Amino acid sequence: MKVCKFGGTSVASAEQIKKVAAIVGEDTKRKIVVVSAPGKRFNDDIKVTDLLIKLAEASLSTGETEKELQAVVDRYADIAKGLGLDEHIVNIIEEDLRGRLTINRDNRDLFVDQLKASGEDNNAKLIAAYFSSIGMEAEYVNPKEAGLIVSDEPGRARALPEAYENLSNLRDRKGIVVFPGFFGYSRDGVMMTFARGGSDITGSILAAAVNAELYENFTDVDSVFAANPKVVDSPVEIKRMTYREMRELSYAGFSVFHDEALMPAFQRSVPVCIKNTNNPSAEGTMIVAEREYSKSPVIGIAADGGFSTIYVSKYLMNRELGFGRRLLQILEDEYISYEHTPSGIDDLSVIVRSHQLTPEKEARIISRCREELLVDDVYVEHHFAMVVLVGEGMHNTRGLTARATTAISRVGANIEMINQGSSEVSLVFGIQEKDTESVLKELYKEFFSTSAVLGV
Amino acid sequence: MKVCKFGGTSVASAEQIKKVAAIVGEDTKRKIVVVSAPGKRFNDDIKVTDLLIKLAEASLSTGETEKELQAVVDRYADIAKGLGLDEHIVNIIEEDLRGRLTINRDNRDLFVDQLKASGEDNNAKLIAAYFSSIGMEAEYVNPKEAGLIVSDEPGRARALPEAYENLSNLRDRKGIVVFPGFFGYSRDGVMMTFARGGSDITGSILAAAVNAELYENFTDVDSVFAANPKVVDSPVEIKRMTYREMRELSYAGFSVFHDEALMPAFQRSVPVCIKNTNNPSAEGTMIVAEREYSKSPVIGIAADGGFSTIYVSKYLMNRELGFGRRLLQILEDEYISYEHTPSGIDDLSVIVRSHQLTPEKEARIISRCREELLVDDVYVEHHFAMVVLVGEGMHNTRGLTARATTAISRVGANIEMINQGSSEVSLVFGIQEKDTESVLKELYKEFFSTSAVLGV
Repeated sequence: MKVCKFGGTSVASAEQIKKVAAIVGEDTKRKIVVVSAPGKRFNDDIKVTDLLIKLAEASLSTGETEKELQAVVDRYADIAKGLGLDEHIVNIIEEDLRGRLTINRDNRDLFVDQLKASGEDNNAKLIAAYFSSIGMEAEYVNPKEAGLIVSDEPGRARALPEAYENLSNLRDRKGIVVFPGFFGYSRDGVMMTFARGGSDITGSILAAAVNAELYENFTDVDSVFAANPKVVDSPVEIKRMTYREMRELSYAGFSVFHDEALMPAFQRSVPVCIKNTNNPSAEGTMIVAEREYSKSPVIGIAADGGFSTIYVSKYLMNRELGFGRRLLQILEDEYISYEHTPSGIDDLSVIVRSHQLTPEKEARIISRCREELLVDDVYVEHHFAMVVLVGEGMHNTRGLTARATTAISRVGANIEMINQGSSEVSLVFGIQEKDTESVLKELYKEFFSTSAVLGV
Repeated sequence: MKVCKFGGTSVASAEQIKKVAAIVGEDTKRKIVVVSAPGKRFNDDIKVTDLLIKLAEASLSTGETEKELQAVVDRYADIAKGLGLDEHIVNIIEEDLRGRLTINRDNRDLFVDQLKASGEDNNAKLIAAYFSSIGMEAEYVNPKEAGLIVSDEPGRARALPEAYENLSNLRDRKGIVVFPGFFGYSRDGVMMTFARGGSDITGSILAAAVNAELYENFTDVDSVFAANPKVVDSPVEIKRMTYREMRELSYAGFSVFHDEALMPAFQRSVPVCIKNTNNPSAEGTMIVAEREYSKSPVIGIAADGGFSTIYVSKYLMNRELGFGRRLLQILEDEYISYEHTPSGIDDLSVIVRSHQLTPEKEARIISRCREELLVDDVYVEHHFAMVVLVGEGMHNTRGLTARATTAISRVGANIEMINQGSSEVSLVFGIQEKDTESVLKELYKEFFSTSAVLGV
């Protein structure tokens, strides 16, 4: 049995949904289909989820909602018409939305969440109706009925153990199950949404629960690439990578999808395949527990800008027990999380994402370093980038670090920071933001010099 | 005016002290001479300081001290005889020791300290007597009389600001000042010893106080070497290095002397020269504020074994604000200080010096990581070494890191950790202890491939 999840762009229009039906229909193992809300049909389009947020806000502010409500209904109507479905399903959806608008709005966030989740919920109903209309045996299944019980954490709910037990029963359903992504229900029966990437999370929970042989994540790219295609021309496609490698690449924003969403699948060792709705016959990228890496020790390279460094120095710092911990506490008091802390004998740097800093926070940090830590020097620098080299082979293959550092110096970039030693699967370089593109290109050339497809 | 300090081996015997006299006599600028207690005359010898510790312990335990007392007195007598001095000075020294043995012993540490410090004190008296006996105008100066006022921290006293004012008056003394190293007096008049390397500290305090043109540190090696001569054959001698470079090399135990001792000199920009009592015409090593480094960006390489790694991993660790800080707190609670903390997206390693760990501490740390931090995995590994590459040119010279990592992989060693990014002057590699010698040799070959003398 396979579980498939279709993202927003894959279910944004009638045309796309017909492709989905074809994909599901051609493989009888595709028994559970998780869908998102209709996404963007073209670049400047608005996702239905965003239309629902506007509807919620209109309701909470002025109470005047007809315009925003119609905007949502029209999208579904458009899809239904293109799929040859009659008005019935659109009426059901409109009634559902009007019902949600009358819900208790004392808890503002819950009110908004209920409306957001209707995007997935109603699209699942519509898609199930379409499947049935073309003769596929299919049914919409509601998460509450199916027992997708989650923790009481709105906007970041987690599936509870009983959810897996309940959902395993989906194996016994006769036809295709069409399941809305993004939300579950707390033990008290209150609807709870997942964090971003919600439909991915639903998909992997279901895949784990039914012990699927494969979890197929349908999106709008053929595969995960070894480097950002916007920077590197025609980067190789990754055919096979491990969970760990996916996780490390996501660090620098390798955002094909949200890797944390895959955790339930990872934990049950369900293989995941990234596929393209618009090119379903392409192999895609398999994400698995382990892979043979001797031929391709490095699987991908990712880079992300927007980092800053807080540098402190104090003579005999290394003799002051607790110095580093106290510096981290100062940052924690400002709700700043850190990425790396290279340290010397008399100095320490903390690398953080720049967006967490404001001029006021910087000033407070600097002042507390002076007054409480009695540092000799403290300053903050911006405009750094982190480049991460990822691969299961990195720990064992000598010379990789040497090749990487040589490549970086070839393009004249200065290495501001190196972090190696904790993860066995990645190596992080800090460079100046201005060098990001040239470094990424050169590292790609160094490690992927043929266009041979990787990771057999 | 120059300040000279002579270490234990340089003043261990009559023969050595004659060399000292010759060195001081040949340069009329050498006006202030700081001396240690008589050190080892040969490899298996016992330093006078250690004899004094035995004397103190005998006094504190049984009260029977004649044997231990005579052992100390005999050493001075031996020296005095070799220097052609009569018994008078030896009697003064014996009386002084007997007096110290009657001091209040309620404060055990202070009692021991007073006896330890007599080693320097009495040797200074003896040496001053010798200088005078051969016609050099010289006087013993007592630190209390000279106003070397220090903080109230036994065993780790620090000179207070008024000390520098007081000691600056030494400039006006007519002859040569012979000053005992290792101790000063608190504002309350209690004798306080410095930390290890005490005579080095006294020397640099005096050099700073009198604004000396040079502080000459006489020891038993010609210079500081670019790498450990016990591992690398005939390493180049460092002719000129900066304070920062000396400090960074000391990290991995480059222990020609105790670099922190030089801080007072560094702070006043007094140049320091390391010289050999047994070969005083050799240039030695100059330690200065800045140097021209374009020809020799790397000044030295040091390596030290005995490191351990505490590794923790937890999925989504990077999202848990405060995780790293809490781990450091656990170590701090065990009084363990750390060296480096390479960190990944879901894991963190803390590198510590192994001697701080005991099986009990390890067990507690592991258990607290599990119970309080809810880690997925935690373990401790031993037998690592840190290799540090030092040089003022490291920050600006591209390609150094690449050359270093290439060299390390050439000898088949795995790079377990890299720490670059805080200090501008050093790069630290973590390797397995077993690879230390081969890595050090190869890095030396890479960066010091001719025998040309460094650092013009």
